[in-house]
Amino acid sequence: MVTIELHPQVRPLAFLLGTWMGEGEGEYPTIQPFRYREELRFWHNGKPFLAYQQRTSAIEDGRPLHGEMGFLRAGADQSLEFVIAQGIGLAEVEVGTVDGTRIELQSTFVGRTPTAKAVSGVRRVIWLEGERLHYELAMAMANVPLTHHLSARFQRTGD
Amino acid sequence: MVTIELHPQVRPLAFLLGTWMGEGEGEYPTIQPFRYREELRFWHNGKPFLAYQQRTSAIEDGRPLHGEMGFLRAGADQSLEFVIAQGIGLAEVEVGTVDGTRIELQSTFVGRTPTAKAVSGVRRVIWLEGERLHYELAMAMANVPLTHHLSARFQRTGD
Repeated sequence: MVTIELHPQVRPLAFLLGTWMGEGEGEYPTIQPFRYREELRFWHNGKPFLAYQQRTSAIEDGRPLHGEMGFLRAGADQSLEFVIAQGIGLAEVEVGTVDGTRIELQSTFVGRTPTAKAVSGVRRVIWLEGERLHYELAMAMANVPLTHHLSARFQRTGD
Repeated sequence: MVTIELHPQVRPLAFLLGTWMGEGEGEYPTIQPFRYREELRFWHNGKPFLAYQQRTSAIEDGRPLHGEMGFLRAGADQSLEFVIAQGIGLAEVEVGTVDGTRIELQSTFVGRTPTAKAVSGVRRVIWLEGERLHYELAMAMANVPLTHHLSARFQRTGD
């Protein structure tokens, strides 16, 4: 085992590292409200970014729902860049900042495959409150301005 | 342990499933040629896509070089959609086809973070030859048309 030191630019993001388990709720003008279970993981390899992976599942029967993977890149000045691939056929670029244990990100670019839904914008807020990690996600679509979509909270379960 | 059945649309991609280890070579008009080691993994959760993760490292000292993660989505008609997040700050959408054990993909969309290099297009060919998986990748940049960049080959080392 070799312990890899965190890149200095990533130190402000150290509070994200590890595996997190939690639950969330979704709502949107075009769908029925729903609840979900989520596993979230941030890790690093010594470079100035964290790797990110999450997956959600149904609370009733555990069937897989949504999945995302990507890289959260840290600048020298607390600026952030987030690139994300989503299983539903989206490739996103977000930019934002980290301030203490609060992260705010806004999409600058949402790429869609030919069969993906018409998502046109995403805003994410991620924050630590005590030992709980939280996020909220708002989404814009072709006919819907940026509107609250997801809200979830997590406890750390592993490295 | 529960074995999850492959989604019927993903069956033509079953030859990709597993963990692959290999080596490759890179070249491009703007850089010195280089060699690298690579670990590649495709897995699934019963949905009509494969999850994808790869990372490359230096042959001399094993230091991490590049990383990508994403989802390879299969249509009903052998059409493919690939969404990829890259550690260097790219979020890509590619479309293509699978024909036997040969996959061809072309980017339709390359999103870049503010600090990413000016990559404007990617073409990937992935194929199985005997028990070896191969890929070739060509890349276009602001001042360079689509040009061969990477070539690698792999042996399956695990599920």
